[in-house]
Amino acid sequence: MQEFAELIRDVPDFPRPGVMFRDVSPLLADADGFARCIDALAAPWRSSDVQLVGGVEARGFIFGAALAQRLGVGFVPLRKPGKLPPPVRSVAYQLEYGEDRLEIREGVLRPAQRVLLVDDVLATGGTLGAAAELIERAGATLVGAGVVIELTALGGRVRWAERGPLHSLLRY
Amino acid sequence: MQEFAELIRDVPDFPRPGVMFRDVSPLLADADGFARCIDALAAPWRSSDVQLVGGVEARGFIFGAALAQRLGVGFVPLRKPGKLPPPVRSVAYQLEYGEDRLEIREGVLRPAQRVLLVDDVLATGGTLGAAAELIERAGATLVGAGVVIELTALGGRVRWAERGPLHSLLRY
Repeated sequence: MQEFAELIRDVPDFPRPGVMFRDVSPLLADADGFARCIDALAAPWRSSDVQLVGGVEARGFIFGAALAQRLGVGFVPLRKPGKLPPPVRSVAYQLEYGEDRLEIREGVLRPAQRVLLVDDVLATGGTLGAAAELIERAGATLVGAGVVIELTALGGRVRWAERGPLHSLLRY
Repeated sequence: MQEFAELIRDVPDFPRPGVMFRDVSPLLADADGFARCIDALAAPWRSSDVQLVGGVEARGFIFGAALAQRLGVGFVPLRKPGKLPPPVRSVAYQLEYGEDRLEIREGVLRPAQRVLLVDDVLATGGTLGAAAELIERAGATLVGAGVVIELTALGGRVRWAERGPLHSLLRY
């Protein structure tokens, strides 16, 4: 999958000094690269009977919605606070400083529905863990998670632990 | 296209009293409904030589990315301020109170590249107009715009004016 790596641009010191930002803009803008990326995200789950893809706001919407179409299933957005009309289900998670929340629309998931989570980047795993908790609290079944980029030094995979298979396309 | 209407839920008084929110969650979660919606968004542009779909953050990412895959082209995100690493191109637009900005990554669009804009809702047209301005300032060619929902009473179509064809799937 290293062919994708050439379409990801490293931007040092964004969003703050010392952080290397992995910019997926060139990958998305490249018709072939984007299509191959979605194919690669789909590949591990072809036999997993996925019924719904859950995408984390905002870049997870891009990969998740495209993936849902490729797999022929529906899409559920996992949103930042205040974006969804009530009733919503909400989970808080830790950030480096303070905390944030993810929300899902109540009643969108059916019990035991098989949901695959998707995001662009796995860093510390806080966001993806909160997304998984939302899926499980709704009574749905978490099939696993797919991310485009895994920042291995931040330990997100360890934190994800036993929640299910986790596939990443690129590791830094 | 009225079959989609049954998959859109009306939520009164969100995000504030007096506003009827059109919730697309049930449409997205329905595999058939979502696929037919993307087919319908794609239909008017099959012969338009679209080279890139531009989606407006955040729900425009969902429809735009899926549409880009359906058309076999790349995707460019039009983002809220501060999300994209520099250099960015930025356009301000008016809200009911105050103003907001949309940003695009500098250098992602090539001159004369043919871009189709997509968003979930056309209301007053401020956001879509700013998106169009970003495309044009970058020297790319605006093919037109597609939206899922058009709120006709808010006059967005009038404001869009001569920028190119504008297709909506549902009108309220």
